Amino acid sequence: MLKKLLLGGLGAALILTAGILLGHFGIQRGLTTPGWIQDVTQDVDEELIQKFISEVDNLEIQENLRELTKVPHMATTPGDEKTVQYMLKRWQDPDTGLDRAWREEYLVYLSFPDPKTPNKVTVESPTGKVLYTARKTEKPYGQDQENPDVVQPYAAYSPPGHPKGKLVYANQGKPSDYLYLNQTLELQGTIAITRYGGAGRAQKAINAAPYGVIGVLVYTDPRDINDGKMSDITETYPNSWYMPPSGVERGSFNTQYGDMLTPYLAAKDDTYRISPSKITGIPPIPTQPIGFEDAYALICNLGGLPAPNEWQGAFNCTYNLGGPGFEPTSNFNDSQVKLDIYNRGEIKNSSNVMGVIRGSVEPDRYVIYGNHRDSWVHGAIDPSSGTSVMLEVTRVLGRMVKQGKWRPRRSIIFGSWGAEEFGLIGSAEYSEEYYSKLSERSVAYINVDISVFANATLRASGSPSAQSVILKASQQVKIPGSESTSVYDNWIRYFNRSSPAYGVIPNVGFLTGAGSDYAAFIHFLGVTSMDISYTYDRTKTSARIYPAYHTAYDTFDYASKFIDPGFTSHQTVARTAGNVLMRLADSLLLPFNCSDYAETLEGYLSKALELYTDGLAVRNISIEPLKVAVYKFRSASASLDKMIRDSDLANETPLKVRRINDQLMLLDRAFLDPVAFPDQYGFRHVIWASSNAGVPTFPGLADAYSRAASSGLDVDWDETHRQLSVLSQAILGAAYTLEEVI
Amino acid sequence: MLKKLLLGGLGAALILTAGILLGHFGIQRGLTTPGWIQDVTQDVDEELIQKFISEVDNLEIQENLRELTKVPHMATTPGDEKTVQYMLKRWQDPDTGLDRAWREEYLVYLSFPDPKTPNKVTVESPTGKVLYTARKTEKPYGQDQENPDVVQPYAAYSPPGHPKGKLVYANQGKPSDYLYLNQTLELQGTIAITRYGGAGRAQKAINAAPYGVIGVLVYTDPRDINDGKMSDITETYPNSWYMPPSGVERGSFNTQYGDMLTPYLAAKDDTYRISPSKITGIPPIPTQPIGFEDAYALICNLGGLPAPNEWQGAFNCTYNLGGPGFEPTSNFNDSQVKLDIYNRGEIKNSSNVMGVIRGSVEPDRYVIYGNHRDSWVHGAIDPSSGTSVMLEVTRVLGRMVKQGKWRPRRSIIFGSWGAEEFGLIGSAEYSEEYYSKLSERSVAYINVDISVFANATLRASGSPSAQSVILKASQQVKIPGSESTSVYDNWIRYFNRSSPAYGVIPNVGFLTGAGSDYAAFIHFLGVTSMDISYTYDRTKTSARIYPAYHTAYDTFDYASKFIDPGFTSHQTVARTAGNVLMRLADSLLLPFNCSDYAETLEGYLSKALELYTDGLAVRNISIEPLKVAVYKFRSASASLDKMIRDSDLANETPLKVRRINDQLMLLDRAFLDPVAFPDQYGFRHVIWASSNAGVPTFPGLADAYSRAASSGLDVDWDETHRQLSVLSQAILGAAYTLEEVI
Repeated sequence: MLKKLLLGGLGAALILTAGILLGHFGIQRGLTTPGWIQDVTQDVDEELIQKFISEVDNLEIQENLRELTKVPHMATTPGDEKTVQYMLKRWQDPDTGLDRAWREEYLVYLSFPDPKTPNKVTVESPTGKVLYTARKTEKPYGQDQENPDVVQPYAAYSPPGHPKGKLVYANQGKPSDYLYLNQTLELQGTIAITRYGGAGRAQKAINAAPYGVIGVLVYTDPRDINDGKMSDITETYPNSWYMPPSGVERGSFNTQYGDMLTPYLAAKDDTYRISPSKITGIPPIPTQPIGFEDAYALICNLGGLPAPNEWQGAFNCTYNLGGPGFEPTSNFNDSQVKLDIYNRGEIKNSSNVMGVIRGSVEPDRYVIYGNHRDSWVHGAIDPSSGTSVMLEVTRVLGRMVKQGKWRPRRSIIFGSWGAEEFGLIGSAEYSEEYYSKLSERSVAYINVDISVFANATLRASGSPSAQSVILKASQQVKIPGSESTSVYDNWIRYFNRSSPAYGVIPNVGFLTGAGSDYAAFIHFLGVTSMDISYTYDRTKTSARIYPAYHTAYDTFDYASKFIDPGFTSHQTVARTAGNVLMRLADSLLLPFNCSDYAETLEGYLSKALELYTDGLAVRNISIEPLKVAVYKFRSASASLDKMIRDSDLANETPLKVRRINDQLMLLDRAFLDPVAFPDQYGFRHVIWASSNAGVPTFPGLADAYSRAASSGLDVDWDETHRQLSVLSQAILGAAYTLEEVI
Repeated sequence: MLKKLLLGGLGAALILTAGILLGHFGIQRGLTTPGWIQDVTQDVDEELIQKFISEVDNLEIQENLRELTKVPHMATTPGDEKTVQYMLKRWQDPDTGLDRAWREEYLVYLSFPDPKTPNKVTVESPTGKVLYTARKTEKPYGQDQENPDVVQPYAAYSPPGHPKGKLVYANQGKPSDYLYLNQTLELQGTIAITRYGGAGRAQKAINAAPYGVIGVLVYTDPRDINDGKMSDITETYPNSWYMPPSGVERGSFNTQYGDMLTPYLAAKDDTYRISPSKITGIPPIPTQPIGFEDAYALICNLGGLPAPNEWQGAFNCTYNLGGPGFEPTSNFNDSQVKLDIYNRGEIKNSSNVMGVIRGSVEPDRYVIYGNHRDSWVHGAIDPSSGTSVMLEVTRVLGRMVKQGKWRPRRSIIFGSWGAEEFGLIGSAEYSEEYYSKLSERSVAYINVDISVFANATLRASGSPSAQSVILKASQQVKIPGSESTSVYDNWIRYFNRSSPAYGVIPNVGFLTGAGSDYAAFIHFLGVTSMDISYTYDRTKTSARIYPAYHTAYDTFDYASKFIDPGFTSHQTVARTAGNVLMRLADSLLLPFNCSDYAETLEGYLSKALELYTDGLAVRNISIEPLKVAVYKFRSASASLDKMIRDSDLANETPLKVRRINDQLMLLDRAFLDPVAFPDQYGFRHVIWASSNAGVPTFPGLADAYSRAASSGLDVDWDETHRQLSVLSQAILGAAYTLEEVI
C-alpha cells in the first residue's frame, strides 16, 4: 500500500511535472510572451558576418568590373544608361538581388564640349600660321582601343572662349604662384600653363583672372604622377601603371556641389532654375587640360627667366616662366597660344539607381551604402572599382536575404549615384529630395568610390563616432594573401595616430571636403558618414593619385594588370565595408562611440586655444564658451557611455535601446547649422565644413580668424566672434543631446 | 477496475491540468515575460483624465492670479524676479511640485523709457509755450492703486528723438491711409496720430516714414475697444470692463522676434552680438502711445478736411485730417505737436523658469506646455491668467506624481518664459539654445498665454494634425455652470467650419503669425503647436481685444470683476488644456491625425489653384508640382491611417508604435526649410510662415505672387517660381515621411 501510494505519488508527481513543463514550455510562449521579444533584442550575429566575409568573391568583383567598363559611361551618355540597366538587373535578380530596386531621375545642369567642333589648343605664329596643335589622342589599350566613343578631354564647366596670348608657366596656379609671376613679368593678356596639384582645379583659373590672365592650360607633370617617369615606350602604361604622355586628366571645374541651377531643390522637370549666368563658383576664364606630351612641347620652348626650383617638374628641360611667351630661339619664337573652347551647358537627365533591403525590426532606420556610377571615360577604377565592390556586397547579402537566412534589423539602402563627376550631383539631389526622411532616419552613410587606389593598405575617413566600427571590422578581415595578418594590423603600419584613449591605432581620417558623394550626407544632412578604400604605400610612390585617374587609360585592362591583379584588394575592401554595413544594420546598440567624438573635439580645441586665444583676447573675444562646450561634450559622452555600460540592453525595454540609439544616430545632426556658412553651399556641419586655413581645428573659426588676422577689419573680427558663438552653441547643443534625456 | 482506471485517469488528468495551470500561470510570467511589457503597451487612462478634470479648482486659479499680480512684473524688473521665485517655489513644492524645476538665464536686448525723464507729448505754440501735455496718469483701481511702481507707457524699441511738427490724423497707419493723406496734404515734417488696429504696431511708423512723417502717436479709439463708449464715470472701468480714457496700450514696436542682437544664437554672456545699429525691423521714427483722453484733445482740435467716414472713430467730434495741424479756431491754432522720447536699449537678464515631469516609458519624448511670465504692468490677464492656469495644471498633475498615482509615458516640460512682451524672447532663446534636442524629441507645444479674454467660448489654434486631440478634450470638459453642455458643443456655436471629412465642427484656427510664444516652436523648430484660450461672444462686443489689454488696468480686480468672476472660465481652459496635455503625454499612439493636415493642404491648394494658375501659366510656371505634392500627401496620409487602423498596436512590437509615432511627431518638422524665407527671421515652416497677402493659402507663394503681380518684374516672378518649388518639395518631402518607411 505504501509502495502503491509512493508509486501513485511518484506517478502524480511525474504527471504534475509533465504538466508544469507542458504549461511552461508548451503553451506559454505563444500566449503571453509576445513573439517579437526575441527579434527586438537580437544583436549582431557574428557567424553571419563570418559567412559574409567568406562568401565575398574576388572573381565576382573582377567580372563586375569587366561588365561595367565595357563602354565609356560618362554621366547621361548611352554608356551610362547601360550601367543603369546593369545595376537594375543585378539588384532585381530573383536569387541575389535586393528586396526592391528602381531608378530615380533628375534633370541636371552638366557641361560638355561640342562633339562636332572639338576644343583645340594651338600655337599660332604672328602671321596666324598654326605651328602646333595640342590635344593628341589618348589610345586606350586593351578592350577599348578600337572604341571610337572615348570622351573628349575637357574642363567641365569651364566657360567657352577663344583667348589667345603669350604663354607663361604658373606652376600650380596657387595665389602665391601668380603673385610671384606678377612681380617678374606682365601677366595681362597671357595664357597660363599650370600643373595639377597644390590648388583646386577651378582655383587655377579663379586665381589667375584678377591678374588679367585670359586662359589657363592644365596638365599632369610626370613629377607629380609618374614618380618622374615620362617615356611612352617602356615606363608608362601599358608597360607600367604610370600615365602615358598622351593621358589627359579631365575633371569638373566648378566649386559648388549638387546641381548648380537648383540650389537646395531637387532638379525635377518643373523645378525653379536660376539662370546659368547666376551660377557662382564657375571660373571666369577658360581652362583646358592637356597631356604632358603637349605640355612638354610648350613648356620646354618657353622663354624668360627660369622658374624657381620648387616649380621645376620632371621634363628634361628648364622650366622658364615665359617672356611672356616662347624663347626667341625656339620654333615658336613670337607665337601665341590659342585656346578654342566650345564647352556648353546642357540640362540632361541623370539617374540614380536605388535598391533596398527592408529592416525586420526597425525598418525606419536606414543604413545607406553608395557610390557613383558615372565615369569620365571607362572609369575602371573611378568609380567602377567601387561599384564592383558594391555589387559583390549586394550579391552576398541579397542571396542571404533571398534564401531566408538573414534580414537586417534596420533597413539598408544602396545608391548608385549619377553625375558625381560633375559635382556629386546625383547624391546631392537625392539628399534634397528626401531631406526630411533621410534626416529623421539615417543611421549612417558608407561611401566606397574608388575602392582600390593601390594595393598596400586600407584607408578610411569618417565621423569620429564611426571610428570604432571601422576598426572592429578591420580586425576581422585578413589582408590579401595572408591567413593571419588583419587589415587592422597592416593598416596601423601605414597610417596611425596616438589616441589619448587607445594609444597607437590606425588613423581614421576626417571628411572635411567634398571629394565624393559622402559630402551631401555629412555636410548637408549631418549623417554619420564613412569613406573606405585601399591605397598606396607612400614609400613606393609619390603619385598625386593613381596615374590613370580621369584619363582614357582608366580601363579594365589597367585595373586588372596594374592596380589589383586578382582583385584581392577589392575583395578586402568589400569584406571590410560589408562588415561595417552589417554591424550598423544589425547591432542592437549602434556601434557608434560618442567619446571618440569628444577626443576629436578636444584635439581641435587644443589647437584652437594654442592658435587663437591671445589674438581673440586682444579683440575682447572670449574663447571660454568653446572650452565650456567641449568640456560639457566630454562629460555628457562619458555619462552616456557609463549608462550604456551599466545597462543590460538585451533585457531592457526596446524603447530604452532605441532612445540611446537615437542619441548616437543623431549626434552628427546636432552639429548642423544652416546659417553658419551662408556663402558655402551645402555645408552645414560646423565641425567638418571645408576650410581654407589649413589648420587642424574648427573650420569656420579657423577661416574667419585667418581672414580677420590678415585684414584687421572689424567686420572680419565680428564674423570670427560669430563663428565662435555658432560653433560653441552647436557643440553645447550636441552635448545636451547626449545627456540624460530629461 | 475500469472505474479505478477512470478515476486514476481523471486524477491524472486533474493533476496534469493543475501542472499545466501552474506551469502556465505560476511560473511563466515572472520568468520570461519581461516586466516592462505592460508599461510599454499602456495607453491613456481615461479615469486619470477624469480625476484630473475633477481636481482642477477655480479658486486655486484665483489665488494663483492674486499672488502673481501683487506687483507689476515687467520683464527683468524686481517684480519679475518675484514671479520667478514664486514659480520656483510652486514647482519645487514637495507635495504638488514637479520632478525638477530650475531657472535659465539670458542676457537680452530690451528697450525702456528713462525713469527720470519720462517721455512727453506736448502741444507747443509757435512761441514755444506748452499749451497741452499728454500722458495723463493711469490710475489702477483695486489693490494696486497706491502702488507707485506702475510702469510708464511707451513703445518698446521705438527710437528716441524729439520730433516736432504739425499733426495729421492717419487713421490706422496702413499704407493706404498714408497714400490717401499724401494726396490731400503735405506730410513732410508732420506728426501722425493713428489708432490701434489695421496694421501692426511698428507698421504705423514704418509706413509713415517714406512720406516724411517724423513721429507717430498711437491710441486706442473707443470705437475699436469700448464698443463706442468713452465716459470715465459710468461706462468704463472700474464700472465696466471698458478701457478708461486714461488707459494706454503699451507694446513692442519691433518686427522680429527673439533677442535681436543674437540672431539664431542663445543670448549668453559671451555670445556674439550684432551692433544695435544693425538691427532691422525697428521703426525709423519715434512712436508714442497715448490714452484716448489725450487723443480726444488732439484729434477734436484738428483742422483740414474731414477724414473719410471709414476713418471716423467714436469721439463726439468730426475727425479731420489736419491742415496739417490744428483748426485755426481752436486754442491750439498754429501749434505743433512735440514728442520727447527717451527710450533706450539695455541688455538685461531675463529668466525662463523650467520644470519637468520625467516620462516613464519614453522619457526622450517631450510634451511642452508654456506661457510667458512677464507683463507690461500687473498683467492679470496678459499673461497671468495663463500662468495661473498653468500653475493649477502643474499642481494637480504634480500631486498625482508625488502621490505615485501617475507618471506620464512621455516627459512633460513646463516653461514660464521671460520677456515675451519684448518679442517672444525667452521662448525664442530657449529654442535656439536647445535646438537639437528639442528638434529631435518634441512631440508638441501647448501655449496658454491669455487664458481668458472673455467668458463665452473656447478658442484654439494649432497644427491641423492636432485638431483631433483638441476636439476630443473639448468633448470631455463641460462649460462653466453646466453639467451637460460640453466645451465642444458650446464652441461649435461660436466658431465652426465645414470639414469635408467631418461635416460641421468647431473651427481650430491656424498659427500663422508670431502672436505668442508658440512662434519659435512652430515656425523655427517645426514642433506641432497649439494655442488655447477662452474668448468673446462677438455678438456682444466688437472690442479689438479685452479693453484693459497692455494697460495699467489689467489687474486682479479687473480680471476677477469683469473678465471671469469665479474663475470658472479659467478652470475650463485648465481642464481642456490639461486634458490635451495628458493625452499627448500618455497615449500609446500619438493623438495626431495626418489626414487632417491633408485636408488643410487641400484647402490651401484649391485657393492657390483658383488664384494663381492662370497668372503663373502666363509666365510659363507650372503649378503642377504643387498639385502632385498635395495629392501625394493625401494618399500617404490615407495609407498611414489605414496602417494604423489595421494594426493591433498594443500587441505589436513597441518599435512599430514608436515608428508610427515618430512619423506623426515629425510631420511638422518636415515642412521646415531654413532657406525658404531668408528675410524673415525665425520663419522656416513653409505652411505657416507669416504672410502679408491676406489670402488663406500657402504664405510664401501668396506673398511672392502678390509682389510679382504688382511689380511685374522678372526677379519677382523668379522668386514666385522658387517659392512654388520650395513649397512643393517640402510638401512632397513630408508626404515621403508618411509613406511606408521603406
